[in-house]
Amino acid sequence: MAPAGLRLPKDAPRTFGIVLYNQFEVLDVFGPVEALNTISRNLVDSETPMKCITFGPSTNPICSGPSEGMGSSFSQSFVPDATFHDEKKLSEVDVLIVPGGLGPPDSERQAVIDFIQTFYNHRIKGHQNKYLFTVCTGSNLAAFRSSKTPQVPSALEGLAATTNKSAWDYFFVQNGWHKGTYWVANARWVPQGNVWTTSGVSAGTDGMIAWIAQVYGEDKAQFACNGMEYNRQANPDLDPFAALYGAKDVPATEADVKWIIKT
Amino acid sequence: MAPAGLRLPKDAPRTFGIVLYNQFEVLDVFGPVEALNTISRNLVDSETPMKCITFGPSTNPICSGPSEGMGSSFSQSFVPDATFHDEKKLSEVDVLIVPGGLGPPDSERQAVIDFIQTFYNHRIKGHQNKYLFTVCTGSNLAAFRSSKTPQVPSALEGLAATTNKSAWDYFFVQNGWHKGTYWVANARWVPQGNVWTTSGVSAGTDGMIAWIAQVYGEDKAQFACNGMEYNRQANPDLDPFAALYGAKDVPATEADVKWIIKT
Repeated sequence: MAPAGLRLPKDAPRTFGIVLYNQFEVLDVFGPVEALNTISRNLVDSETPMKCITFGPSTNPICSGPSEGMGSSFSQSFVPDATFHDEKKLSEVDVLIVPGGLGPPDSERQAVIDFIQTFYNHRIKGHQNKYLFTVCTGSNLAAFRSSKTPQVPSALEGLAATTNKSAWDYFFVQNGWHKGTYWVANARWVPQGNVWTTSGVSAGTDGMIAWIAQVYGEDKAQFACNGMEYNRQANPDLDPFAALYGAKDVPATEADVKWIIKT
Repeated sequence: MAPAGLRLPKDAPRTFGIVLYNQFEVLDVFGPVEALNTISRNLVDSETPMKCITFGPSTNPICSGPSEGMGSSFSQSFVPDATFHDEKKLSEVDVLIVPGGLGPPDSERQAVIDFIQTFYNHRIKGHQNKYLFTVCTGSNLAAFRSSKTPQVPSALEGLAATTNKSAWDYFFVQNGWHKGTYWVANARWVPQGNVWTTSGVSAGTDGMIAWIAQVYGEDKAQFACNGMEYNRQANPDLDPFAALYGAKDVPATEADVKWIIKT
């Protein structure tokens, strides 16, 4: 297969960070990443290369599987490139991808939330071409304020967002965790400027293809789909899983929601 | 989310092996594995747990990215649980999943082929409920005979199979590598008894959902799709990418093809 010779728009974001933690959901990461991998290795030689940096609580291997005692030993191991404390590496990141899943375990949870909010506060606010992209319950992690800066609104406050539909009842009905965000039930993904959230697991792939279309161009999105032999869902508002799980919009109070970006 | 309490059929295969090598395609592995992860952690307590073992050339981390000099530093790292030489671990495996991708590099290629054929010869032949499941160009690896037993037909000889459609021209037109297999162009996946091959990248996910439906039951397949919020393609014969890449059936000679299993 000859290189396709793709060119990205000038100044397009090229460095992706991926948050890893124990018990993350593998397709949340590797659906979107597959699309990015496909593009990254087909750029023309004169292009600035794309770069991927995985971040974890430490550089010890991360395990995708559930904790001991959940009746399963089905898991896979991943090696993060950098830790959540690596400010230098974080300063390179243009787009941070946050997966969901059963985790993080309680011992890692605050570190993950702090890392997301540090990225948001230092890299997104006031910068062009920087993005936060969450998959599945990754948005629920992004909805919390950092323990380090409890007075600073989270990345999702005042925005519309979505998350996993099977977890909807747990988060919003049982626990009332709206966190000042308007949660959209009937959405495969919700783009809000430079903060994108997607629905459960495989929705991250469709959301990333849509992100690629918007930021890199539709030809790159089509190239990724063809390379992956992927029948993409291109309509963000089509989500049969909302009805399946009985998910309904969870409006934050008007005082909470400062703006919702219509796209 | 309460456990779903899934039960697998008695004596159903429960231990999955995954072949990892440098430059493997991430979605080839983590699409199918996501479906299996979803089921594995929702079995009733009394079920024998499912198990996943990843195999690599060594237990050093495996890199998904292209080799140096391909203009990309976009990659992710994975830790195999065992090496290709671990016969004890291999003897536990009921289902071996073989991904495709840019790799393996020449230095690993023969070891991967030998490992697949060792599994096929020792675990599949004469055993019930053992499977070889390839994704994308993983089938091209499975089509070669082992260098250790060059007189023994490969896992795919005499069978129908499919592979990545963008690589079709390279394999079959440019290089004439049919290897005694009938290659079906217009197929999302091709089930042939206990040897299943799937088309490019994302086709592996649909193929694994179909495998789950056949071997574990349709309710488990639906459970996995709902958990992944995945709109599955349930028709194995629908493949728009065959036409996109101009792929046409590559018949082996009649003398080569001993049987093709009609499903």
